[in-house]
Amino acid sequence: MRIRKKPWTESELQTNPHVVHNPADFKGRWNEYFKNDNPIYVEIGCGKGRFINENAKTYENINFIGIEKQETILGLATIKSAESENTNIAFFLANAENLLDFFDENEVSRLFINFCDPWPKKKWRKRRLTYRSFLNIYNTMLKDDAHIFFKTDNSILFESSLNEFLETDWQLRNVTLNLHKSGLENNIVTEYEEKFSSTGFPIYRLEATKNEK
Amino acid sequence: MRIRKKPWTESELQTNPHVVHNPADFKGRWNEYFKNDNPIYVEIGCGKGRFINENAKTYENINFIGIEKQETILGLATIKSAESENTNIAFFLANAENLLDFFDENEVSRLFINFCDPWPKKKWRKRRLTYRSFLNIYNTMLKDDAHIFFKTDNSILFESSLNEFLETDWQLRNVTLNLHKSGLENNIVTEYEEKFSSTGFPIYRLEATKNEK
Repeated sequence: MRIRKKPWTESELQTNPHVVHNPADFKGRWNEYFKNDNPIYVEIGCGKGRFINENAKTYENINFIGIEKQETILGLATIKSAESENTNIAFFLANAENLLDFFDENEVSRLFINFCDPWPKKKWRKRRLTYRSFLNIYNTMLKDDAHIFFKTDNSILFESSLNEFLETDWQLRNVTLNLHKSGLENNIVTEYEEKFSSTGFPIYRLEATKNEK
Repeated sequence: MRIRKKPWTESELQTNPHVVHNPADFKGRWNEYFKNDNPIYVEIGCGKGRFINENAKTYENINFIGIEKQETILGLATIKSAESENTNIAFFLANAENLLDFFDENEVSRLFINFCDPWPKKKWRKRRLTYRSFLNIYNTMLKDDAHIFFKTDNSILFESSLNEFLETDWQLRNVTLNLHKSGLENNIVTEYEEKFSSTGFPIYRLEATKNEK
């Protein structure tokens, strides 16, 4: 859902120290941005940012980068980051199809995709963030032992994601058709997930390991 | 569900020409039983037999073997087979854990598991027909390019099945979380499937290719 740009968005994104305005400059050099060699975890479509901000607080030895294509949504995420003094979190505005402008081969250790737009009609399937063209991009930027962690409430998207991963030779593990009954520990819920799962509908999740290059 | 043995069962199983009373004798020699070298497809837990009987009528160049552990249920399946004059169908009474008493390595070209008992509690998981100990048995009896076709209405069983197949290195394809909306052609429905899917709940399905021996 595209939302109207709020008047405060521009000043928030301009002034928040966690917002990176020139992300392409750090392609292959994110360790210089973070001033350490800790692993880099990326969330594509970070939404309102609870997931990535809580992760950054919990895992101080990991660097987190949240990417969002909508300015106002990104502003909501960066506002949350200002509540803490973490230096292991960064955000930038971008579309997923351009990720290789910002990340080098083998630069990222983990990728999160949480409740992305399901694009439920078949004619829209190439826009889904788990369509094979996107998986190829992720495959390039991820390290060899890296994982994608994927969550959704949409069964059509989950079914097509399973098949896209399988047909492009990713290894899947820990597939669940009802996350909140699965007993999985350390699940950090997103804003959307909390709202949706309170309705009693299941949340689907999988982990995928990249294939050999 | 175990059902009471009906009085007609014994005579039906004794007299129906499609019932094999000495299946272990044909281990490695099912082509002699069928008097041809056509591929052999096996349904484990054939229930009341609509699925396997319709398959046998539709695919005359395939030999079908239905296995069921409950005598009265098997009797219902064999009665259906008497309605046609097909010679490409056989049935026998057995438990799945004993399959290697009846089939040699690389003897079977396809395996169907339709709506088997979900054994939904975790403590029962080793009884599920997709638990890894069963997958090992199937792996032995199946040919290298063979597939397992698996259908269920139970999300707990389907989730555990996905993970059992993935963790034991089977290749999955055509995973669907809602079979009757998936557009899959040539789906032959079982008695249970017809009854269940009329309630509107989804039916899950997958195909698995065996791993390298």
